[in-house]
Amino acid sequence: MTKYEFGIDLGGTTCKIGLFQGEKMVEKWEIPTDTSEGGKNILQDISDSVRAKINERGLKGEEIVGLGIGVPGPVTDDGTVHNCVNLGWGTVNISEKLGEISGFAVKVGNDANVAALGESWMGGGKDYNSVVVVTLGTGIGGGIINNGRIVAGAHGAGGEIGHMLVNPEEELACNCGLHGCIEQYASATGVVRTAKRFLEKTDEPSALRGREFSAKTVFDAARNGDKLAILIVEDVCDKLGKTLARLATVVDPEAFLIGGGVSRAGQILLDHVTEAYKKYAFHACRDTKIALATLGNDAGMYGAARMTLD
Amino acid sequence: MTKYEFGIDLGGTTCKIGLFQGEKMVEKWEIPTDTSEGGKNILQDISDSVRAKINERGLKGEEIVGLGIGVPGPVTDDGTVHNCVNLGWGTVNISEKLGEISGFAVKVGNDANVAALGESWMGGGKDYNSVVVVTLGTGIGGGIINNGRIVAGAHGAGGEIGHMLVNPEEELACNCGLHGCIEQYASATGVVRTAKRFLEKTDEPSALRGREFSAKTVFDAARNGDKLAILIVEDVCDKLGKTLARLATVVDPEAFLIGGGVSRAGQILLDHVTEAYKKYAFHACRDTKIALATLGNDAGMYGAARMTLD
Repeated sequence: MTKYEFGIDLGGTTCKIGLFQGEKMVEKWEIPTDTSEGGKNILQDISDSVRAKINERGLKGEEIVGLGIGVPGPVTDDGTVHNCVNLGWGTVNISEKLGEISGFAVKVGNDANVAALGESWMGGGKDYNSVVVVTLGTGIGGGIINNGRIVAGAHGAGGEIGHMLVNPEEELACNCGLHGCIEQYASATGVVRTAKRFLEKTDEPSALRGREFSAKTVFDAARNGDKLAILIVEDVCDKLGKTLARLATVVDPEAFLIGGGVSRAGQILLDHVTEAYKKYAFHACRDTKIALATLGNDAGMYGAARMTLD
Repeated sequence: MTKYEFGIDLGGTTCKIGLFQGEKMVEKWEIPTDTSEGGKNILQDISDSVRAKINERGLKGEEIVGLGIGVPGPVTDDGTVHNCVNLGWGTVNISEKLGEISGFAVKVGNDANVAALGESWMGGGKDYNSVVVVTLGTGIGGGIINNGRIVAGAHGAGGEIGHMLVNPEEELACNCGLHGCIEQYASATGVVRTAKRFLEKTDEPSALRGREFSAKTVFDAARNGDKLAILIVEDVCDKLGKTLARLATVVDPEAFLIGGGVSRAGQILLDHVTEAYKKYAFHACRDTKIALATLGNDAGMYGAARMTLD
């Protein structure tokens, strides 16, 4: 009998759903996330969409292994979500609730951790059992995969590496209330903020002066030889390399995978981060691979599907 | 049938051996570690000692679950030890070799990780599944226990938290070759070094002036109200608290356990580390328990015994 599973990546605006056959994604689609009335329709909408797909394809109930879902908030091991601010949810046991509504077994994880699991399963970490995924987006997310399993943490804060302290001198507060988290420097907004500081403190000419720019613009300028942009990239990557070196003394992964919008900078980012990492890394882990994540926005669906297979 | 297991903690000078009955330590003893000729007699000596105990007590072979052993060097998941400098060993699969010599199933781990497992099983972590143990001795060792299992790392460097960078400005090199590792400040030698720096840079009167002193002396002086000693303790604990906060963003344990000689300072150490930790910790893990390890030098035997029970 062919077995299918659903991998669901629930975001604040849309919910991505993938139908999988073991390791293979068969089809993917999206539904809007209805955050009205404290997000009370979200699980029913997901269940309806899954049911509709099952009917459309004429699948049988016993062919469905289960549903996996990544949600934007802290999740503890029993499948309970604690405060998904973006969805309007308080504390809910999603595993039980979506299980009741849909009639299928449901596995739940934090979205960043689940995406990390997806990357480690079928993406940049396919060859490894233990990886750390760092996602450089508007903020910084992350996930620790140890021997094929998510390290979720006692308070759902496993892999919250965007909030690892890297600059104790920072005066500006991070979104989390602390000062000097790596998210303040190496996220998309962090790169822009760092660039603005460099532009302010010198008169060095640069293609970045007198215009609006994004993290992509900064990396593009560095790639084109813009001296100030190169200094900015070096500064960002020094902080990121230092953070990866600290991570290595804790979980010592086989590989680090870097994903998210900023990672589209590609080789120039990898080269500078690797150089900084080697400078700060403990000798036993100095040669740990640093590579790009490869699944992009599908990582969450893959990881969610993977959870159902345990 | 009563089942027994042996928990072995192999050090560079002595080898501690414990006979256990499940969770209960029945008896413990020590044999010298013979490091002559590249440590080639060590495993035979251990096997002989275990066999002698079995005979002495009239135990039957089928009553023995197996042997667990913690060794002072990096160990990978297959039981291979990579360079135990203190023992004169290169790369050896201890699990296979001691298994052949003794005729029992053998589980192997790094000594610091195994001691952490012991603490999490029957010591300060008895009530928790996921703990981080930090051992403040001559150096700093550590171990990450996630859901009851050691995070050994891809290169045996899981829990090498003594070498997490805490002071990028440090000019003096750590034993590992890096600069500014937490071991340079919060180990027994690190506390003394920090104290000497404080004594040099001020004229403040202190009970520590003009005498030889140890880490214990520094904590004792602080407890007695010596102002400079209090500043030294605050500085050391600030760095340690910062390090624990960084650890929390990676594995988010239920509790941190502090052991080793320096931890005999007790409450004054816990109070200052907890205060610093709360200042730097990510909100979700701000209330994570920080407690003392309780098994002392027996932790390694307990953890080694625990490994045989999986």
